[in-house]
Amino acid sequence: MTALKNDIFIKALLKQAVDRTPVWMMRQAGRYLPEYRQVREQAGSFLNLCTNPELACEVTLQPLRRFDFDAAILFSDILTIPDAMGLGLYFTEGEGPKFKYPIITAADIKKLPIPDPNIDLRYVMDAVSLIRKNLQGSVPLIGFSGSPWTLATYMVEGGSSKSFQRVKGLMFEQPKLMHEMLDKIALSVANYLNAQIEAGAQAVMLFDTWGGTLSSEDYIEFSLYYAKQVRSLLKTDIDGQQIPTILFTKGGGLWLETMADSGYDALGLDWQTDIQIARARVGDKVALQGNLDPVSLYAQPEIIVDKVKTILQKYGQGSGHVFNLGHGILPDINPEHVKAMVDAVHEFSPQYHR
Amino acid sequence: MTALKNDIFIKALLKQAVDRTPVWMMRQAGRYLPEYRQVREQAGSFLNLCTNPELACEVTLQPLRRFDFDAAILFSDILTIPDAMGLGLYFTEGEGPKFKYPIITAADIKKLPIPDPNIDLRYVMDAVSLIRKNLQGSVPLIGFSGSPWTLATYMVEGGSSKSFQRVKGLMFEQPKLMHEMLDKIALSVANYLNAQIEAGAQAVMLFDTWGGTLSSEDYIEFSLYYAKQVRSLLKTDIDGQQIPTILFTKGGGLWLETMADSGYDALGLDWQTDIQIARARVGDKVALQGNLDPVSLYAQPEIIVDKVKTILQKYGQGSGHVFNLGHGILPDINPEHVKAMVDAVHEFSPQYHR
Repeated sequence: MTALKNDIFIKALLKQAVDRTPVWMMRQAGRYLPEYRQVREQAGSFLNLCTNPELACEVTLQPLRRFDFDAAILFSDILTIPDAMGLGLYFTEGEGPKFKYPIITAADIKKLPIPDPNIDLRYVMDAVSLIRKNLQGSVPLIGFSGSPWTLATYMVEGGSSKSFQRVKGLMFEQPKLMHEMLDKIALSVANYLNAQIEAGAQAVMLFDTWGGTLSSEDYIEFSLYYAKQVRSLLKTDIDGQQIPTILFTKGGGLWLETMADSGYDALGLDWQTDIQIARARVGDKVALQGNLDPVSLYAQPEIIVDKVKTILQKYGQGSGHVFNLGHGILPDINPEHVKAMVDAVHEFSPQYHR
Repeated sequence: MTALKNDIFIKALLKQAVDRTPVWMMRQAGRYLPEYRQVREQAGSFLNLCTNPELACEVTLQPLRRFDFDAAILFSDILTIPDAMGLGLYFTEGEGPKFKYPIITAADIKKLPIPDPNIDLRYVMDAVSLIRKNLQGSVPLIGFSGSPWTLATYMVEGGSSKSFQRVKGLMFEQPKLMHEMLDKIALSVANYLNAQIEAGAQAVMLFDTWGGTLSSEDYIEFSLYYAKQVRSLLKTDIDGQQIPTILFTKGGGLWLETMADSGYDALGLDWQTDIQIARARVGDKVALQGNLDPVSLYAQPEIIVDKVKTILQKYGQGSGHVFNLGHGILPDINPEHVKAMVDAVHEFSPQYHR
């Protein structure tokens, strides 16, 4: 494998010295780019796009041709694992993801298989290898998965949810059964991320999109516990190269101290959390990734630049910060505004690394 | 006016000694009650129900006939003020509230009137007087309003929103104009709450439903600042009787220390926030109200009882806790489950007040 030409993303996650703050963007391969919409149309459906390694590779690389991002992230869906478990993922217009066979009974949980990622999720591993090859060492490739709790919410609800009534019902009334399911999902997630690492992912991120809907005690028991279990099973060293790990719980700002003890190298921050206070709270335990309000990108470029400067200044001196949004980019953002953000990180961050 | 027969709700908010923890429930007058659904049908529309003092009084009293709640809360909508400002509130099936004339231009903000609550919102004041009279001093009556920031979101978005793109756009790009609008709304909210207090409300609560969608610094500048402004304008003493004030920011758990310095007597807590940690963070400055996960009420009564006991135990010894949900009750909860919650507070809280 080619050595990385730009490894500041990896170094910042490991809190090693860098000469400026690295930057990438959640959902950077996405609908805000006209070239993405073109490939998406060509694919016919979102699922076709995810399951076709050539097309997934193409859309992964698109944002890097436009912007000076310091990392690429695998283009995929967070629900590939439940789909590989046989739940039958499909998408409906305007309603998001759905499962044909959601988890309803104890028997559904008992019979849940642990997918073999190199067989059942071959298309993902093929995409990872292809992207890694095409990147030619320009920037590192991030692999990812939904967190066990987040995957469980979709599996039990049968799709997106507002109140999480079914999955919380299972958690409140049959906690043992819930733990049994989460155990299986955690093992599947770890296998999946390890296969991505073997196929070429140089960092991995766990997206706990719905951990923030839980009470503090339920978060610790049903979400963070399984994020830690995943972490403990990860191979984070390939040929002497460390694979940094990132944990992102949207709405998790209350629990940063506990999250910082979970074994991950970095925590993703949503935009509600003040990054200066967050850094003081986690100390030297982890790096931080974030956290511009995604809605800021609708504002004029000069306002975006100001907001970037504020976040850089709040994090302050030294390594351990990866600039990002506090959540995925919204689909109708002007790409010129993304450029303003990326360029501002390049221009104004070196002063914090002297 | 009759003296209160049960004033433990008022006393707990003021951190005065009580013999058990008081309990009420956000949206306790609502769709989960068959008798509410009957009156709602009779009214023909939700707005008819809100604007008819006799019907609003009836649904306010309904939950008190079923459950041993320690407070009544005015039945009304949070968007009565923008409606009185001329924005034309209406409701569409499944889409929630909408405004015919949302705020679009600077001129729209310049011409926003400050409503006279005793004229423009007479129906609310008539409902307050009627409810107060009908309560006959059994329990106190809570008046309420949406917070200035929360009202501004609906006024600019024209209804509910997911990303708050328009209102944040105004905030980011024209902060002075945003402040001008929030100033007008804050004055209107203070006038409205003062009129409710004069009409008979014995405590008031400010619902900041969307403050938690802001970054920390935007929350302080655009939401909390105006909640404080409202508080500073309130008449909180009527005939020597103190009128306690409650501030509830959904998703505000990160900012409790600052909120505790805002002049309110109590803070509402959402269910994500650990009430034990919250109490340690705010110290003796404020009482706390909350914070059972509303979804818990789907679980079997014995599980609900356990969760009530955990929250009571977490708050611990002494006054200053009002038991409540962490958000409004969901519309399809079994009323028997509410009874289990209320009865558990009655049974298991006295030990914390010895």
